[in-house]
Amino acid sequence: MSLIVQKFGGTSVADLKRIRSVAERVAKSFDQGNDVVVILSAMAGVTDDLIDMANQVTVLPDKRELDVLLATGEQTTAALLAMTLQSMSYPAKSILGYQAEIITNCNHGSARIVKIGADRIKELIEKRNIVVMAGFQGCDPEGNITTLGRGGSDTSAVAIAAAIKADTCEIFTDVDGIYTADPNVCEKARKLSAISYDEMLEMSGLGAKVLQIRSVEFAKKYNVPVHVRSSFSEEEGTMVVNEDSSMERLIVSGITHNKDTARITLKKVLDQPGVAAKIFSPIADAKILVDMIIQNTRAEGLTDLTFTVSKKDFSKALEIEKQVAKEIGAEKVFGDESIAKVSVTGVGMRSHSGVASKMFTTLAGENINIIMISTSEIRISCIIEEKYAELAVRVLHKAFGLDKD
Amino acid sequence: MSLIVQKFGGTSVADLKRIRSVAERVAKSFDQGNDVVVILSAMAGVTDDLIDMANQVTVLPDKRELDVLLATGEQTTAALLAMTLQSMSYPAKSILGYQAEIITNCNHGSARIVKIGADRIKELIEKRNIVVMAGFQGCDPEGNITTLGRGGSDTSAVAIAAAIKADTCEIFTDVDGIYTADPNVCEKARKLSAISYDEMLEMSGLGAKVLQIRSVEFAKKYNVPVHVRSSFSEEEGTMVVNEDSSMERLIVSGITHNKDTARITLKKVLDQPGVAAKIFSPIADAKILVDMIIQNTRAEGLTDLTFTVSKKDFSKALEIEKQVAKEIGAEKVFGDESIAKVSVTGVGMRSHSGVASKMFTTLAGENINIIMISTSEIRISCIIEEKYAELAVRVLHKAFGLDKD
Repeated sequence: MSLIVQKFGGTSVADLKRIRSVAERVAKSFDQGNDVVVILSAMAGVTDDLIDMANQVTVLPDKRELDVLLATGEQTTAALLAMTLQSMSYPAKSILGYQAEIITNCNHGSARIVKIGADRIKELIEKRNIVVMAGFQGCDPEGNITTLGRGGSDTSAVAIAAAIKADTCEIFTDVDGIYTADPNVCEKARKLSAISYDEMLEMSGLGAKVLQIRSVEFAKKYNVPVHVRSSFSEEEGTMVVNEDSSMERLIVSGITHNKDTARITLKKVLDQPGVAAKIFSPIADAKILVDMIIQNTRAEGLTDLTFTVSKKDFSKALEIEKQVAKEIGAEKVFGDESIAKVSVTGVGMRSHSGVASKMFTTLAGENINIIMISTSEIRISCIIEEKYAELAVRVLHKAFGLDKD
Repeated sequence: MSLIVQKFGGTSVADLKRIRSVAERVAKSFDQGNDVVVILSAMAGVTDDLIDMANQVTVLPDKRELDVLLATGEQTTAALLAMTLQSMSYPAKSILGYQAEIITNCNHGSARIVKIGADRIKELIEKRNIVVMAGFQGCDPEGNITTLGRGGSDTSAVAIAAAIKADTCEIFTDVDGIYTADPNVCEKARKLSAISYDEMLEMSGLGAKVLQIRSVEFAKKYNVPVHVRSSFSEEEGTMVVNEDSSMERLIVSGITHNKDTARITLKKVLDQPGVAAKIFSPIADAKILVDMIIQNTRAEGLTDLTFTVSKKDFSKALEIEKQVAKEIGAEKVFGDESIAKVSVTGVGMRSHSGVASKMFTTLAGENINIIMISTSEIRISCIIEEKYAELAVRVLHKAFGLDKD
C-alpha cells in the first residue's frame, strides 16, 4: 500500500467520457489499497477560451482577475471527477488550491509556491477519501487566488507529493514517456525507462513539453520520484528520479530539437562596458525571453553580437534592435528566422570527453553548417539551418548509439 | 455620499457587452462619490448548463461537488466585471463567497447564511475599491463551498447590505419594479413606488418571481431598504421597505395570479386522528411541496380533503394518493389540473374589513366560481378555473381601485 499522487492533463479530462476513464483508473489504484490524491488540469482548450474571453474585455486584463477567471477551469474538472467517483460509490472529495493551502507569492499568472499546508489533504486521506485537487491554482498569503502559469498542474502535483511525502507522483499525459528523440521525427527513438532530474530539466528547457520545467526543479529539490506515463494505456512510462548507479548508463540520453527559434545579429558593435545592457534592456522591457547569446570579438575594438528569441517575438525584437543599433552606432542589424536548435543531453557527459567533437563531426558528415553553439555541463546545443533539423536529430541519434535495435 | 449594494441578475450579465453596460452603471454610481459593492449572478443559462453537465455524470450528483461546480458561474462573472472596470481605470476587486466570509450551514444546494464576516469587504471599501462579489455562494464553517439555491444572489446582496450597513440595496433585474398586477395580463397595472416587506413576502410566495423570498425575509429582519429596478433603464423602480406612514395607503397593493397549481381531492375520508399524517407523509417523502390544504367536514364522521401542488408534481402526487386512499379507505380520489390561484395582497387589510366580500362579489359578478379559499393576515387567495385567471386579475384590479388613470 502506497500514497500516490496522480496528475491528469487537459487532454485526459477533455470531456465527461474521458473524466469517467480517469475515474476508473483512479478507482483501480484505490482498490489496490493505495491512498490516492488526484491533481487535475482544466479540460483541454478551456484555459485558452477563458483567456480569449478576457482579451475580448481588454487587451491587458488585470492579472489578479484573470487568475480568478482561469481558476474556474480546474475547479470545474475537480468537481466533475469527484462527482463521477461518488456516483461509482467511491468516497471522493474535491479540494481547491486555497483549501489545500497552496500558498504562493503574489505574482499573478506565474506564481511560485512558497508553502503548502497540506493538513486538510492529510486529514481527508486519513478518512480514506480519494482527494481530487484542482491543479494550477493556489492563493497568496492574503487569500487572493493565484495561478502557477502554463503547465502549472505538473508543479501542483509534484509540490503536493513533496508536502504529503507521497511514494510516487504519476503524471498521466498524452505521450507514454520520455523518448530519446521526438518519435515523429526519428522513428528509431526509444522510450527511456528512467531519466535523471538534471537531464529532464535540460530537455524541458529545450522544448520537450512533457513536464513543466518548474515541476522538475521541485521534484529534484524534494527528491520526488515522478512517473511520466500515458493516460490511455497501462504501460509503464519513464521514471524521473535522482541520478544513481541503478540508472541505465548512457553518455547521451536524448536528442532534442526546437524550431521555435530565430536569431538577431548586431554587427560591429563598439566593444565597451554598458553596450550589452543597452542591447538587452529594451528586449527585457518588452517581456521578450532571450535564449542563447553569443559574442565574437573582432579587431579594432569592435564586436559582433548574436542572440536568439522565439519566432513569435522575432519581428518585435528586430524592430527594437534597429532602434538600439542607431543609438549605439552598430554598423548593421539583421535577423534569420529559418534556424533550429538541436541538442544532445546526458549526465554521462560529465565523465566522458569527446561528446562535443562527435556531435560536430556527425553534423559535418551531412554537410550541416553550425551557426551557433552553446553548452551546459550536461548539454550541447547547436543552431543550424531549420531545414536540416530532422536530419540532424536522426544522425545524432544513431551516432550516439540511441537507435533501437 | 452613500454606501450602496448593487445586484445584477443573469440577464444583466449574459454576455461581455452587457457586462460592459453593468460596469458603466456601476462606474456612474462610484463617480457620484458613492461606495459601491456589486453582487453578480452567473451569466443567464450557465447555471442550468452546469446542472445539465452534472446530470450527465449521474442522475443524483453529490451535492457538495455540485456546489463546487455551480460556484464557477458567479466566479466567472465577478472576475469579468472586475476586469472590465479595471480596464476603464476603476479600482475594482472581485471577491468570492468564502473570501467575503459568507458563512452558511452545510445544507448544500440551499444553504442558509448564518454569519457574515464582512471585514474583508469593509477593508476593500475603505481603500476606495469597487468590490465585485460573486453572489449565490458561501462556505460552511469547515470551508466547503455552498450555494444558496435558485435566486440566491438576491439573498447574498441583501445579507451583505445588512452586514456592511449599506444605505440601500439595489436589485437590478429585467423588470423595472413591482407592479399592482402582471402587466402582460392587466394592461392597466401600475408600478408601485413602494411596497412593504410583508406584502413583498406574500407576493413572492405567490409567484411574483422578482425577488427570492428569503432575500425579503432577510431585508425585513435587518431592515435593509431594497430598490428593485431595471438594468436597462435609469428609471426609479420600487422600494421594498418597512411599512410606515409615508407609504402610499392602499388597502390592496397588488393582484397576483399563478397558473402553476393543481388540486387533488380525497372524498369521504374517515375523520379521525392520524389520517392527515397518512395523507401527507408520503407526499413530503417524495419532496413534493404542498401549497393550500382545505378540509370540509361531512356528515357521518367522514370528511373531504383537498390540497394543491405545482403542476409538475401533479401526476406523482395523484399516484401517491391513489395508493393512500386504498390504505385509509377513502371513497374516491380525483384531481384537476385546470385551475389557477388569484390573490389580493395588502397591509391595508389589517385595518379594513370588507376586502374578502368585495373579492368574492367581484368574481361572482363575472360568473367565476370559487373552488377553494385561503387567507393570511394580509392576503386572500382563491382557486378558480384556470381559463378565468386573466379576467379575474383585471376585474379585481379595477374593483380595488388599482387601475391607472
